[in-house]
Formats: sequence, structure tokens, C-alpha cells
Amino acid sequence: VAKRLEKFKTTIFTQMSMLAIKHGAINLGQGFPNFDGPDFVKEAAIKAINAGKNQYARGYGVPELNSAIAERFRKDSGLQVDPEKEVTVTSGCTEAIAATILGLINPGDEVILFAPFYDSYEATLSMAGANVKAITLSPPDFSVPLEELKAAVSKNTRAIMINTPHNPTGKMFTREELEFIAALCKENDVLLFADEVYDKLAFEADHISIASLSGMYERTVTMNSLGKTFSLTGWKIGWAIAPPHLTWGVRQAHSFLTFATCTPMQAAAAAALRAPDSYYEELKRDYGAKKALLVNGLKDAGFIVYPSSGTYFVMVDHTPFGFDNDIEFCEYLIREVGVVAIPPSVFYLNPEDGKNLVRFTFCKDDETLRAAVERMKTKL
Amino acid sequence: VAKRLEKFKTTIFTQMSMLAIKHGAINLGQGFPNFDGPDFVKEAAIKAINAGKNQYARGYGVPELNSAIAERFRKDSGLQVDPEKEVTVTSGCTEAIAATILGLINPGDEVILFAPFYDSYEATLSMAGANVKAITLSPPDFSVPLEELKAAVSKNTRAIMINTPHNPTGKMFTREELEFIAALCKENDVLLFADEVYDKLAFEADHISIASLSGMYERTVTMNSLGKTFSLTGWKIGWAIAPPHLTWGVRQAHSFLTFATCTPMQAAAAAALRAPDSYYEELKRDYGAKKALLVNGLKDAGFIVYPSSGTYFVMVDHTPFGFDNDIEFCEYLIREVGVVAIPPSVFYLNPEDGKNLVRFTFCKDDETLRAAVERMKTKL
Ligand SMILES: CSCCC(=O)C(=O)O
Ligand SMILES: CSCCC(=O)C(=O)O
Repeated sequence: VAKRLEKFKTTIFTQMSMLAIKHGAINLGQGFPNFDGPDFVKEAAIKAINAGKNQYARGYGVPELNSAIAERFRKDSGLQVDPEKEVTVTSGCTEAIAATILGLINPGDEVILFAPFYDSYEATLSMAGANVKAITLSPPDFSVPLEELKAAVSKNTRAIMINTPHNPTGKMFTREELEFIAALCKENDVLLFADEVYDKLAFEADHISIASLSGMYERTVTMNSLGKTFSLTGWKIGWAIAPPHLTWGVRQAHSFLTFATCTPMQAAAAAALRAPDSYYEELKRDYGAKKALLVNGLKDAGFIVYPSSGTYFVMVDHTPFGFDNDIEFCEYLIREVGVVAIPPSVFYLNPEDGKNLVRFTFCKDDETLRAAVERMKTKL
Repeated sequence: VAKRLEKFKTTIFTQMSMLAIKHGAINLGQGFPNFDGPDFVKEAAIKAINAGKNQYARGYGVPELNSAIAERFRKDSGLQVDPEKEVTVTSGCTEAIAATILGLINPGDEVILFAPFYDSYEATLSMAGANVKAITLSPPDFSVPLEELKAAVSKNTRAIMINTPHNPTGKMFTREELEFIAALCKENDVLLFADEVYDKLAFEADHISIASLSGMYERTVTMNSLGKTFSLTGWKIGWAIAPPHLTWGVRQAHSFLTFATCTPMQAAAAAALRAPDSYYEELKRDYGAKKALLVNGLKDAGFIVYPSSGTYFVMVDHTPFGFDNDIEFCEYLIREVGVVAIPPSVFYLNPEDGKNLVRFTFCKDDETLRAAVERMKTKL
């Protein structure tokens, strides 16, 4: 294995999903629904396959999907972008992240992350030879330590990467935090990489795309995906939106990482993104109810539950149960309780920082959530 | 754009396919069929979508596809591999190449390619910080200059990368060449990366997987894909087969480049790979006829045509027409003749080496091939 990947283990998502299967445990770990995506999107995929849309797509996306992405971004953020020059379709947001980092970051560049972070951020930065700094978001509210962030920016800082709504904490970056980060980026000529895959799962306030703040679009890559919003995580359709000079780097890396993304699924994604507002409202209502169900259950089971205002994850503190760390707690949870969660210590540069925490997802049908809660209430 | 990608241009495939559309020219450039894949595979995809196989696949592949890949490899190469530990499903062979290179190559490692080469090889090696050496395969027979290759291997050589049947020349590496390369790898403790996506399009001799030569499996990553063999280039299903210690590196990079590959298409790919032998025989018969049609037409039109014994490409020399280089010739061919081909100079470290050559594909229906030939016979 290449040295730059040596320190990384099998991703925790794979480890935990495989343990769930092995132990027949209820999987509240990896973020994929156990219910299906909407029929109209599946039908659009089938139609595309039957219509023979089965050969290489244009590398940066089929024209109808690039347009649909630009259109939705305009509705959501108010920004008008050129679908041909500023939108790149990728094989999931994970590839958008890899293409952004490998396409824009040079060895020795410094990049600032907020810990806990989705593990691919650190791994792809390592592939690019970047130096990673992490600012830790701490419970209960995971707010950004503004002065610490400011002090972390140096003349070598090339980019700050944010994720809002934030996996794994459920935190949403506030307007004040985003303005502060934006000002830092502008003052220090720093790029901003924004992973916004949970933008439609913002429960308490509207999601804000940092690209929409004054002077930010020209230095921002905004990433998103189909999977989370349309309950089709397995289709692996993602995208990156950025001004042409940044899109160039993203597309170059994308060309050589995967070249193009599954053609019929792109056609279906274009149909999905044209969903009426009612689709998104219903999604949020459904997930709001699921969140309440899980959060109440976790409280009843004895966890300290931190507020989650976005994503379909909730972070809790397991210390009332007396385990040394998150790994040990999660192992017990699988073996003795029959529930899988994600131990978040792998999402920190220093694993110690996450050792009291555990992440649960509520992207499961109500029956599954109830059964998991029941197990935890009786067996923990 | 990151410095390591600065020298690369928009991939020639994208450039040429876009010019084909713009000029309404017949596209004999990028290697995708203008006919559809088999119904039984499309039906398997539709069945998977309808069955709700739409969430994240296991990162390294859905079990049934890993098994089908191992089974086909056993039939084709005689090698028995563990589908769980030695097979990784990727988003097309392009991702298998990227994951292999980013997962196994360290900055400063030397990797030997044969020019002309598929452009992603050099670009992903550049991302990995490798030093690239290229051995040129020259017309008319594109045979391997054995002593030159031997002299190129140094103590810094980490891997040799081959592609057989070979894009863009149509050359197939002979058993003697493969044995020579294998001996070099073993003597110098060098890895071998083998891109075999055209293995089922071997017209004159059987394809040989270099992994099947004595002592080679343990140091070889064998890559392949669904697209070329099943005329479904847009589905982007590829894979890498390697012993566990190399698979570890490939999987680590894959985890962070794309995490997993489109789930319903993986189910369909498993069905495809279980096609009876008659499917592959018919494919080869059909392509053999198409090759004859194109090759005869190109000769009649006045090209010097080099023999192609594998792939669906044929390489020709355009010097009889008096152009300075391949780019100028291809521009004339698009504008004045209405046919798109690929100028191969981008597939050499030194573009001069390819300036007399042009690549055509015959993966098009007979009518299209006839029309292209007719245009070239009358307008060149
Ligand atoms: C490949 S897992 C992607 C992110 C996610 O779903 C999770 O954090 O669980
Ligand atoms: C992304 S193009 C892949 C290879 C191919 O089809 C070609 O060489 O034309």
C-alpha cells in the first residue's frame, strides 16, 4: 500500500455494515435508508436504460443533468451558474471530494478541516500530499471556535473544508460562523470546499450555501449528491459546482479518476432534481418524525443526546454506560444489544477527542427505529 | 489546478466526441458502440432497480459480482482467486487504474509504460508523484523492444504497466514478450499492472493474462471492465484482481476515491459475466466482420494500415495525404471529410512519436462504418 494511505484502516462504514450483517444487528450505522427511493426516479432510470442511454456520458455530465443541477442551485442559493462551465458530475459526492482535492491541492499545501470529519477528507488530502490541520467542534453544540480557527490560518493555507449540515454531529453552521469563515478566506486568499449533501435535511433553519455569501462564489467548490435526498445512496451520482478556473482542476482530476459517471442514472438524476418543492417538504417532515422517534428513544435508554439540527444523524455521549471508549461501547452494542452505530473517534486527527461519542442514524423505517430503541432501552 | 495535472489537457476523447457532435461528423474516435448492450443485461439492471437494490453497495463490490468476476477469471486464465479477498469492483476500469496507482505507488517510484498509452495512465501516475518512463512500440508491428525495456528497469522501478490487447494500436503482447516482461518483474521485484479490458476482442490468438505466468500472480494487478465486452460503456463497472497484499492498497484508494460502485448495475454485471461462451464467440465474429469492413475501406482510401489483432481499434499512417501531423490531419478529417478519429500523439511522452499516426474505431454499426469509409474514399 502507498505510504500516504498506510495510516488509514478499512473505512468504518464498511467495517460496521459488515458487522451488522454478521451479527444480524439492526444497522443504525452507515447512512443509507432501508427504504427505497421514489418511483418516478426509478422509472426515469429504467426509461433511460430502455432508450439505449448506455454508452459513455460526456465526461463532465450529461447536458440535461448539468442543467438540472444548475437550476436547483439557483433556486436554493440564488446563484446563477453556467451548467456547461461550472458544473461537474461525479460518481457520488465522495468522488467530487477526491476530484476537488486531487485537482486543486498541491503537496505541502495546508488544508483546514473541522473535526469530526467524514474520513475521506483526510485520506484524499493525504493522497494529495497536503498538510491537514483540524479544528475540533465540541459538544454540546459543536460551534466553531472562531479565534482558534483564525489562528490556524497561515500563509500556507490553501483551503478550508466545511460540511454543513454536518456529518456526524448534525450541526448546522450558523450564518455568523459562515460569515466569519468567508471573511477569513477572503482576507487570506484561501479556497473553500463545501460538502452540502445534507442540505435538504435542515430541520430548524434554512441551509445556507457559503458560496452565496458576498465574494465567496469565486473561491468556493460546492459539492452535493443525489443519494441522501432521494434515498438512492447506491446510485452514486454527485457533483461539484465551482467557477470555471476551479472547475478546470476538478474536471481534470475527475477525467482521470473515473472519466464519466453512469449514463442512465444521470438521466434519472436529472428527473429527480426537477421534483416539486412538495417532495423536499415531505422528505423533511418524514425525517423530522424519525428524528423525534430516535432522539426520544436514545434519551429514554440513558444517553446524553446532543441536538441535531440537520443531516439524518444524531450524536450522543455514551459515558453513562461506563465504557472506556467508543470502539468498546460500539462492540458491546453490536454483540449484546444487537444495534450497530458508528464510533466517531476515526473522524478526528486525535482519536481521543471522539472517545465518549457515538453516532446513530435515523434513516430507517419507523419499525426498525422502534425495534432498535426497544433493544437499547431493555439491554443497555 | 494542482501542478501535477497542469500539463494535461482536456482528454482527447472528450475533445473529439464534442467536435463530432458539433460538426455532425461520423464518430470513429472514442471507443463506444453506437449500438446497444444485450437485453438480458439491461433486464437484469431493471430487475435490480425494481427489487430495491438501490442503496450503497459493499465498498469492494456486491458479493454476487465479486463471485462472477472470480469465476470468469478462473475460466479465462486458469487462476483461482478469492472473490472476497482478491477482487475489487470499481467505477469503470479507469477507476481501477487510478485506485491501483494511487493505492500502490509512492512519490518518486518509477513506473514503466508502453507508449502509446491510454492517457489516464500518465495522469494518475503524475497524481501519485511517480516518475514515468515510456518504452515506445513502433509500427508496423508495435513489438516490444526487449533490450530497451530491460535497460529501462532500475532499482527505483516499482511497476511496469501493460495493456493487452493494446489500445490504441490493436497489438497483442505475444507469449514471448509477456514471458520476458514477467522475468524482468521477478528478477527486479517489480509489480505488474495489466489493463485487459479488450481481452474478449482478441482476433488472431487467444488473450493471455500475464498473471497466469509462473510466479506472476503474486505481483500482478489485473484490471478489466464490463463496458467493452457488453457494449455498455456508460455503466462504468470495472474491477481489479490482485493478491490480498496488493488488493489492500487498491481497496484503500478505492474507498476514498468513490467508496462504492452503482449497486443495480453491479447486479446486472454479475448476470452479464455469466453469459454463455456463445455470447463471446458471436461478439468476436461480429467485430471481426466490422474490422474487415473498416480496414479494407481505410486501405482503399489510401492509408497505410497497420495490422490490428485485438481491441476494436486500428492504427493507420496518414502520411500519404501530406499533413504535418496527426492533429492537423484529424482537424481536416473532421471539417472537410466529416469523420472523427483520434490523434494519438497525446498518448506518447514525446508527442512527435505519434505524429504520423491516426486511430480509428470499428465499434459502430455497419452502416456507419460504410458511410465513414465512403466519405474518406471520396473526400480524402
Ligand atoms: C460511504 S458512507 C458516506 C457517508 C455516510 O453515509 C455516513 O457517514 O454514514
Ligand atoms: C474514456 S475513453 C476510454 C478508452 C476508450 O474508449 C478509447 O480509447 O476510445
